[in-house]
Amino acid sequence: MSDDRLAQQIAFLVEADKLKQVIRRTPLADGSRKENSAEHSWHLVLTAIVLREHSADDVDLLRVLEMLAVHDLVEIDAGDTFAYDTQDLVTKAEREQAAADRVFALLPPDEAARLRTLWEEFEAHESADARFANAVDRLQPLLQNASAKGGSWRDYDIDRGQVLQRMAPIERAVPAAWPLVLKIVDEFCASGLLRTSPARTGSDRSA
Amino acid sequence: MSDDRLAQQIAFLVEADKLKQVIRRTPLADGSRKENSAEHSWHLVLTAIVLREHSADDVDLLRVLEMLAVHDLVEIDAGDTFAYDTQDLVTKAEREQAAADRVFALLPPDEAARLRTLWEEFEAHESADARFANAVDRLQPLLQNASAKGGSWRDYDIDRGQVLQRMAPIERAVPAAWPLVLKIVDEFCASGLLRTSPARTGSDRSA
Repeated sequence: MSDDRLAQQIAFLVEADKLKQVIRRTPLADGSRKENSAEHSWHLVLTAIVLREHSADDVDLLRVLEMLAVHDLVEIDAGDTFAYDTQDLVTKAEREQAAADRVFALLPPDEAARLRTLWEEFEAHESADARFANAVDRLQPLLQNASAKGGSWRDYDIDRGQVLQRMAPIERAVPAAWPLVLKIVDEFCASGLLRTSPARTGSDRSA
Repeated sequence: MSDDRLAQQIAFLVEADKLKQVIRRTPLADGSRKENSAEHSWHLVLTAIVLREHSADDVDLLRVLEMLAVHDLVEIDAGDTFAYDTQDLVTKAEREQAAADRVFALLPPDEAARLRTLWEEFEAHESADARFANAVDRLQPLLQNASAKGGSWRDYDIDRGQVLQRMAPIERAVPAAWPLVLKIVDEFCASGLLRTSPARTGSDRSA
């Protein structure tokens, strides 16, 4: 019985290794290459540990770290969906649910249920733990984009309003970091790497 | 004051990004490339979460995860020291203390002291939390070596006794996994990828 559990857990852990091959849009801080979702997940864990004191709400840090450790596992099947790719975002939920059905189910049922529930809590953005975890997941790539002077927005038609909307969870969950977010975004606008307003006229987007 | 703290924390988190460029000897599970210390650290966090029930002692999982998240940060300056490189191991402690002096000190003093103390606890292998964390740090690379059919031992003159000595923390802290460790090591010996006994005769090593 315990042997079966261990064998299932090991199979899950070996499968999880594939997250190291899922490449994100965010560059490393020195711009030398794009980061993968496994090292990104580690960086979020570290960020949550270090910035916990700035959380607007009381959080259970252990739950936050567990959430961050598993939050991208579905990408093993579903791939990384770029946050500003509206077409890809349409199918994201469906692809990720199917991935969760397979990946978490490698674990013993009780552990699979517990970690999948944590992942769903992260995706729902509702609990204090999930709000803090999501804020951390927004802030770390922004810091790397700032350090690498460009990164994910350079090749896409993205404007200031879109970035600030994407970063909004930071304002609520880690308000102390919001002035820094605005400063980084404004510097990107000033340097011409980010549009100040939407590019297309006559689109259905509002500024 | 709080602004200063946040600026220090952000500087530390951006510096930590460099851990993604420290390459270890261990291959990914599919053997396609060697893993880096950041994605390794994430995998250890996940392994500790999943295998916690097998810990021989009660552990504080939050402390274990924090320990694993910071355990390799000194490698940013000191590099990854191969576990079987006796020459490199002589200078490891000194190089890593110097690295800890610099890297943790980027943080506000209270946070720097707390995380450095956790790293030192990990290195000391004495507390129940550190023993479990170290066992996880032995098991994950072994699983990847097994999956990739070779990895770190192929190019080095390493024998069964050395590997089992290196893996001993697993026997004590996660005894349920020890039969699997023996099975993996014996399969490596049977396939000729690992020496059954020391290669050099007349050396000062005992079998």
